[in-house]
Amino acid sequence: MTQPLNIQLMQECLDACLACLRACEMCAEACLDEQDVTMMAECIRRDRDCADACAFTARLLMRASDLHPEACRMCAEACARCAEECERHAGHHEHCRVCAEACRRCEALCRQMAA
Amino acid sequence: MTQPLNIQLMQECLDACLACLRACEMCAEACLDEQDVTMMAECIRRDRDCADACAFTARLLMRASDLHPEACRMCAEACARCAEECERHAGHHEHCRVCAEACRRCEALCRQMAA
Amino acid sequence: MTQPLNIQLMQECLDACLACLRACEMCAEACLDEQDVTMMAECIRRDRDCADACAFTARLLMRASDLHPEACRMCAEACARCAEECERHAGHHEHCRVCAEACRRCEALCRQMAA
Amino acid sequence: MTQPLNIQLMQECLDACLACLRACEMCAEACLDEQDVTMMAECIRRDRDCADACAFTARLLMRASDLHPEACRMCAEACARCAEECERHAGHHEHCRVCAEACRRCEALCRQMAA
Repeated sequence: MTQPLNIQLMQECLDACLACLRACEMCAEACLDEQDVTMMAECIRRDRDCADACAFTARLLMRASDLHPEACRMCAEACARCAEECERHAGHHEHCRVCAEACRRCEALCRQMAA
Repeated sequence: MTQPLNIQLMQECLDACLACLRACEMCAEACLDEQDVTMMAECIRRDRDCADACAFTARLLMRASDLHPEACRMCAEACARCAEECERHAGHHEHCRVCAEACRRCEALCRQMAA
Repeated sequence: MTQPLNIQLMQECLDACLACLRACEMCAEACLDEQDVTMMAECIRRDRDCADACAFTARLLMRASDLHPEACRMCAEACARCAEECERHAGHHEHCRVCAEACRRCEALCRQMAA
Repeated sequence: MTQPLNIQLMQECLDACLACLRACEMCAEACLDEQDVTMMAECIRRDRDCADACAFTARLLMRASDLHPEACRMCAEACARCAEECERHAGHHEHCRVCAEACRRCEALCRQMAA
């Protein structure tokens, strides 16, 4: 009685997780290179959590695990939090603007997968 | 307005995640050594998912991340699924009995953390 | 006095790690679905190790960590072991043939990065 | 012709990896809370790399994977780099002093396992 997997959506969600993982890793690294790292501390924290969530979720999607809806639900939350903070810095830091965009896309697809 | 962290509970939950991670890794490995691995395929799958969930959640707890309630909720689900399958084999395989117990303990503590 | 990073090579190595990670996850999952899983036990083991190694290394490459040469050296070894086992089954299982190819490509690029 | 596993040493190395993982997660988090995060940027970087290396290696040790010597060799290097940076701050930050100690112990045990 389980729903048939939507392969197309699953593939898009996997791609979005990997793109978001990379954007978060690059954003955290770039934040550590800013002149005033103190101001970016919360951004680094959320980048890390989001990167870990995306990496975890991507692997479940790769193996089409039955746990993927729960993982996607949690990942959407991690993405939303990271996007929220990155958006505050998006006017000043290109890496935050790029990261916020990747997070919002991943959040949307994870919510569809979790539904 | 966020609740004060319950340090004692957090520590117990972290210990339970690490114990469950280890039990899952050992159970999956022992399943691969059984004479009839085919019968253990679903157990190996759930061990892997649960191990990944516990490893992810343990690290969030170590750094007291704000994302930990969502992680614990997802981890509890992973533990419940793994326990359910391991319990089916607990009469025949000691590694499954041990793993089911570790999963049930981790599930209970993760549910408390997520509440 | 450290060498300038070869950005082009780094990107190719990252892509190869992600492709190999995915091939290993899919191969392990497909092995668990085979009629005789017992015969695939060693393949599942090496898939898992290789997947973990590729996931770890990919993240270091994404953030251009100074630890990446050591990670690539270790990852090349994980790929070589997984390829060796998958090649034994490549005539019977398409997922093993695909995985072996992804492993050999990742191994080669990791060795270049580690040099 | 492979050497018999030294179970006692393996257990000590696993415990050291988990203790080091935790110390690195706590040190990175505490660094992000310092008044001058900019000064701690390199410490945060090395904490992250070392935490990832320890988490990866711990799981291989839990399942007694044949890849563990390569993982331990790489992990020892990650620990050495993190310890080196933490030792520079050990006089000012207790979390760095604690982390440096955990790293040095893990480095030593990983080198024994890799030998």
